[in-house]
Amino acid sequence: MRALVLFATAVLGASLGTTTLAATVKPETAVNYRQGIYHAILWNFVPMAQMVRGMRPWNQATFAQGAARIEFYSQQLLGGFPPGSLTARSEAKPAIWQHWAEFSAKMQNFENASATLAVVARSSDQAASKAAFIKTADTCKSCHDAFRKE
Amino acid sequence: MRALVLFATAVLGASLGTTTLAATVKPETAVNYRQGIYHAILWNFVPMAQMVRGMRPWNQATFAQGAARIEFYSQQLLGGFPPGSLTARSEAKPAIWQHWAEFSAKMQNFENASATLAVVARSSDQAASKAAFIKTADTCKSCHDAFRKE
Repeated sequence: MRALVLFATAVLGASLGTTTLAATVKPETAVNYRQGIYHAILWNFVPMAQMVRGMRPWNQATFAQGAARIEFYSQQLLGGFPPGSLTARSEAKPAIWQHWAEFSAKMQNFENASATLAVVARSSDQAASKAAFIKTADTCKSCHDAFRKE
Repeated sequence: MRALVLFATAVLGASLGTTTLAATVKPETAVNYRQGIYHAILWNFVPMAQMVRGMRPWNQATFAQGAARIEFYSQQLLGGFPPGSLTARSEAKPAIWQHWAEFSAKMQNFENASATLAVVARSSDQAASKAAFIKTADTCKSCHDAFRKE
């Protein structure tokens, strides 16, 4: 247990400070989390987009791996938007919490499209993979247009 | 396709600029990615640590969900350390690339411990879950001590 206490002090303390006991999450912790998930999505999304746009050789295995990861990440995003989690670094519009049903529906669209993309990508059908990718990208854009700052 | 091109321009362009065509990844992109994964791990790790330390009521389902996510994230980290991916914001020591075999072995220890933790957490054995968590935390600390800046 000593190692854990040391670990928690050294590693968690840095980001949680004296609020370790609090049940609520600090706004900057939520922003770091959700921006982290978005970066992880982008890390996989960019090479896939380059393949779809013919800027990189098509590799179905890489494409399918990225799709599987994005499917997983898509399911972790909504939890990163607790009420009040706005900071200067955040690109989230306050409209998210004023129109939560619409926001969560758009996030669900992304989850659904990502799940379909992951299935299609495993099928090795390049044309269908591209189509499913574009549909997924459209769900990203739809949410960004409504709920992300310029 | 038009939507995708717009999407790629608006969303990817912001972080990739004119290097979209480049096969290599910009250092800051890799740093954003791996720090994002670390934030995602921490997001799940902290409530688990609070349960283990008795600071939050034990919830096996939440614990198991966190463990499953950390198992997934643990497998995505090593790819976030391409050679030369150092920026002012990065906490990675250059020793990572000088001692890559040791670094990747420590990362593998984390992956293995996380995989065991995820299995144990699904078993509903609270004592075993705590023990597996502490072993996982030890693999974090071991790598941070050697390869992360103070």
